[in-house]
Amino acid sequence: MTQKLTESDIDQRLGELPEWTKVNEEIQRTYHFDDFVSSMAFVNKVADAAERDQHHPDILIRYNKVTLTLSTHDAGGITEKDFALASYCDSIA
Amino acid sequence: MTQKLTESDIDQRLGELPEWTKVNEEIQRTYHFDDFVSSMAFVNKVADAAERDQHHPDILIRYNKVTLTLSTHDAGGITEKDFALASYCDSIA
Repeated sequence: MTQKLTESDIDQRLGELPEWTKVNEEIQRTYHFDDFVSSMAFVNKVADAAERDQHHPDILIRYNKVTLTLSTHDAGGITEKDFALASYCDSIA
Repeated sequence: MTQKLTESDIDQRLGELPEWTKVNEEIQRTYHFDDFVSSMAFVNKVADAAERDQHHPDILIRYNKVTLTLSTHDAGGITEKDFALASYCDSIA
């Protein structure tokens, strides 16, 4: 679960999550909401999942836009844990 | 309240808030907390104030670090509203 994925694994997973892009050694998506309150509601759900799984994305809130950036520091790159959290975040957005 | 401050006004206000720095046409501070849960507790208090005042900082959460970036878009720069919110955020951190 926490083993760094190969480039071809990453490309395959990104094909399943088309809104996400690879940026350096991380994956990133920006979500658009109606307003700041909706952004914060999403961020709090992401935070609950992050704390539960002990896997914490970088979270940037810019009014109605929330950017999540994910990597697995222990593994030094992108792992299945990142795609699992990315997929979950998509499901609650 | 929403008039863009002069450079000398900004320098004076920054003297009163030494943890804040001017970055381009914004002011910025990074707060350090014990953990992610503490970061989120702070962010939710900031979010409540932001929504109440209808003045929303950019908020970057990186585990135990929270960076706030403030400017007043309507005024095209830094105003008293930014320093008022900065001061309030310092008081609840």
